[in-house]
Amino acid sequence: MLIQRLAIIGVGLIGGSLARALKRANAVGEVIGCGRNINNLQQAVELGVIDRYDTNPAQAVTEADMIVVAVPLGTIASVFAAIRDNLSAQAIITDVGSAKATVVADARQHLGNYLPRFVPGHPIAGTEKSGVAASFAELFEQHRVILTPLQETDPQAVATVSTMWTQTGAEVIEMSVTHHDEVLAATSHLPHILAYSLVDTLAKMAERTEIFRFAAGGFRDFTRIASSDPQMWHDICLANQQAILQILDSFKTDLTQLITAIQQNDSQYIATVFSRAKSARDKFCG
Amino acid sequence: MLIQRLAIIGVGLIGGSLARALKRANAVGEVIGCGRNINNLQQAVELGVIDRYDTNPAQAVTEADMIVVAVPLGTIASVFAAIRDNLSAQAIITDVGSAKATVVADARQHLGNYLPRFVPGHPIAGTEKSGVAASFAELFEQHRVILTPLQETDPQAVATVSTMWTQTGAEVIEMSVTHHDEVLAATSHLPHILAYSLVDTLAKMAERTEIFRFAAGGFRDFTRIASSDPQMWHDICLANQQAILQILDSFKTDLTQLITAIQQNDSQYIATVFSRAKSARDKFCG
Repeated sequence: MLIQRLAIIGVGLIGGSLARALKRANAVGEVIGCGRNINNLQQAVELGVIDRYDTNPAQAVTEADMIVVAVPLGTIASVFAAIRDNLSAQAIITDVGSAKATVVADARQHLGNYLPRFVPGHPIAGTEKSGVAASFAELFEQHRVILTPLQETDPQAVATVSTMWTQTGAEVIEMSVTHHDEVLAATSHLPHILAYSLVDTLAKMAERTEIFRFAAGGFRDFTRIASSDPQMWHDICLANQQAILQILDSFKTDLTQLITAIQQNDSQYIATVFSRAKSARDKFCG
Repeated sequence: MLIQRLAIIGVGLIGGSLARALKRANAVGEVIGCGRNINNLQQAVELGVIDRYDTNPAQAVTEADMIVVAVPLGTIASVFAAIRDNLSAQAIITDVGSAKATVVADARQHLGNYLPRFVPGHPIAGTEKSGVAASFAELFEQHRVILTPLQETDPQAVATVSTMWTQTGAEVIEMSVTHHDEVLAATSHLPHILAYSLVDTLAKMAERTEIFRFAAGGFRDFTRIASSDPQMWHDICLANQQAILQILDSFKTDLTQLITAIQQNDSQYIATVFSRAKSARDKFCG
């Protein structure tokens, strides 16, 4: 068995789906869940996602050979601090955070001697839903998982975490922390911020009109990610602040130019941007 | 039969789907297609969407009792001018344009005595695809169609156009031209502009990195509308310029405030915007 005892700290969409996928693949013995919301943990037991739970992270990791930290980014440091003194000798720790630089800083500060056993990770998968009830075993199939190991990271720990994700049907890729944070700021964090901001702008208008009644399918697709967990995305904004501010600045500059073009009836500029965007989108996501 | 002879000027996704839906409902006798792209028109005949075609709009509308103008907004004026002198006495003209003020201005300028027989319309339905091959009879089912009749508009013409759309499974709503253009600028035009602009910003980055490889499902949904027809959206930007510039200004102001909050670690501001947006999105699109 790949993992004898798995501790999932944070049994939500990602943590729950990972537990389900590993159980389905017979890649795990016992799964212990940990979290603050007892109702969610009880539901996780009833759904067969975890075998038992402990609300105390230090207790939850006892004798675990794999610990997956799947809490919002702002809470990871406190989890590391809480579990450090109760880890077993062979324990491997990984996380699923959407930004990696702050998690690595948290690990350096709080994991002490266990730093080489920590493998920073990020599955590029999810839905706009949260909580264990939304979890499903197929979530990671044909999705990518990025690992950003450090110079100090034990290659054996990287190999085991990589095998774990492969068992879920995912493709595992390694890259640097910095590159991960830049790429995800562009392809994930920026779209979420724009979707939240757009819906909020429209919600203010909606106080005096019925605009949302006339939203069609395109609007629903475009704003789906604005139904994501606000706490999680709040944490991502602050954790990946620099990369996010940089891509937001590029976006705002480009948008301002487009606005100017619309103001000035600059037909060719508008046509060029729209055509170039359609080509890129069709090419990469078609 | 509701319509004896239907002329569809512009046999694309919308025009083609309307023809299919009316045929399915046995609400139309003969359907004549008109357009510039002969391949598309021949395909429309082969698919059974239209019965025959004529590339000359003036010829296509001969003896038609219903004319649906479904071309990009920038082309509508020339269609009106071309068909005016060949309309039959009982002809009703409608359109499917995404902005109504410019279409109404075009009608006032070019339709002459037929102005009262023109019913400005806009089905709030579509996909990111274009052309008759993408059309399907179910497109308008449970979608809304907005009609924006003028003071001069013949109530009988409005009633007939309304019945036509009802036959496709759509719900018909009437509102003023100005209100339509404001609402659509917010819920449709702004999201499309943001999606195009975002993909274009990222495409520039993609020249030096592989960012699109790491785009997940949320990104695909968010950017789907950036695969829409660039010509159509170019025309909409210029046609609904004022309402679009106004909502873009609101959006940009709100985004700038959010960027400032991220810069200043204003945790509460970020959390408030994201939570408010999620509530609005869940409430109106859930």
